[in-house]
Amino acid sequence: MTTEAKITLVGAGPGDPELITLKGLKAIQSAQVILYDALVNPILLEEASPKALKIYVGKRANVHQYSQPVINELLVQYALSKGHVVRLKGGDSFVFGRGYEELNYAQGYGIEVEVVPGISSAIAVPALQAVPLTCRGINESFWVLTGTTKSGQLSKDIALAATASTTVVILMGMRKISQIVQLFIAAGKKDTPVLVTQNGSRTNEKSVVGTVETIVDLVKAANIGTPGIIVIGEVVALHPNFPILEKDLVYCV
Amino acid sequence: MTTEAKITLVGAGPGDPELITLKGLKAIQSAQVILYDALVNPILLEEASPKALKIYVGKRANVHQYSQPVINELLVQYALSKGHVVRLKGGDSFVFGRGYEELNYAQGYGIEVEVVPGISSAIAVPALQAVPLTCRGINESFWVLTGTTKSGQLSKDIALAATASTTVVILMGMRKISQIVQLFIAAGKKDTPVLVTQNGSRTNEKSVVGTVETIVDLVKAANIGTPGIIVIGEVVALHPNFPILEKDLVYCV
Repeated sequence: MTTEAKITLVGAGPGDPELITLKGLKAIQSAQVILYDALVNPILLEEASPKALKIYVGKRANVHQYSQPVINELLVQYALSKGHVVRLKGGDSFVFGRGYEELNYAQGYGIEVEVVPGISSAIAVPALQAVPLTCRGINESFWVLTGTTKSGQLSKDIALAATASTTVVILMGMRKISQIVQLFIAAGKKDTPVLVTQNGSRTNEKSVVGTVETIVDLVKAANIGTPGIIVIGEVVALHPNFPILEKDLVYCV
Repeated sequence: MTTEAKITLVGAGPGDPELITLKGLKAIQSAQVILYDALVNPILLEEASPKALKIYVGKRANVHQYSQPVINELLVQYALSKGHVVRLKGGDSFVFGRGYEELNYAQGYGIEVEVVPGISSAIAVPALQAVPLTCRGINESFWVLTGTTKSGQLSKDIALAATASTTVVILMGMRKISQIVQLFIAAGKKDTPVLVTQNGSRTNEKSVVGTVETIVDLVKAANIGTPGIIVIGEVVALHPNFPILEKDLVYCV
């Protein structure tokens, strides 16, 4: 007997398995099928029923084995044949996560879809390093962008963000960090503090803090790569490893 | 016997008690003292030990009973006298949450501080209504701003955000929605879709969708107030209640 067809889009959070929500964990525990990505901590899969099908649909050797249309179709077919399918992704399904495409496709088949938000690394990774994205007296907003667009070009939003007083958070931007930095230098921001973190919240987390002018060399020296997050803004001066002279200049009030 | 002084800053998420993280729940369960705010779901307090002190430090009749410096001092004194103190807030402590001030103050006393990120309503509330903040082919970023600044003035970032192609998310902006809308009209965005949600993810959630031009009247007609979140951008056209004609114009690809 199969249970009713249902799909739950679950954000697994930034990597630490305890940063999943209770609701997300319950969905995993009740799933007949789980389709998961590369950035999902495998410990979370141990919470599933031993009978549940667990299918990896992430990248292999940096290449997508399953295209988005194929994943959409797998979700629907498993829901119809097996019952409750959990689509488990790192971070939040709706932050550059293509959760909407999956929801929209499944609803086209009349399948119930539930969204369970996840902790986005955009906010959590800096917070875990004691860097708030906003701080009274320093700034009043944060802007989250992707470094990897459909066209392969850098989003034009990044050039505009470089001129604003907001904290700028760039996901999937590690391969273009040199280009990104150039936009901030062109905007007169060479001394703005920058934090780069790879594998945030995981046991293999690595970070460097510097400025727009120094960060590319620091990233190279520390051998930091993908998956990484780039945070650019005065709030980064609050990081414990930022040179002390600069820290005196900023304070949340 | 008191346990070692420790403070954990826990984000409780947007309101649904199951949207807290496992790590946040464990912190509540092990706390000797919990200092909590108005937007925290009271069900979460039932997870604490019956012996734990639970102290409300939020607003009463819209007035802060405890100033931020007093809360900082309470955190430190309770940690020193009782052991593990959890500071429990709605959403995420570091998104307009003053978590950094608390962390910084407590570290000045040599007290260990742990940060447990929470689900921010900025991302989760639209997601729960099937509105992704970013969608391939529509936009490549989202910008989160506060409508309530220290000075009481509207942040100048909002005027810049109105000119960008990003999705704009405004927290604590309900009392200034008319002014906010004027900035978007001035930027030629009168037809841009807008979602306003009060009490997102809670049982008393209320939402309206419209355009920059229509949203103020819709909000009034539906009697929607604080705490609310305003989302402005083409992605809002994906909302199931948005007029069908417009929905044909947008699609994530």
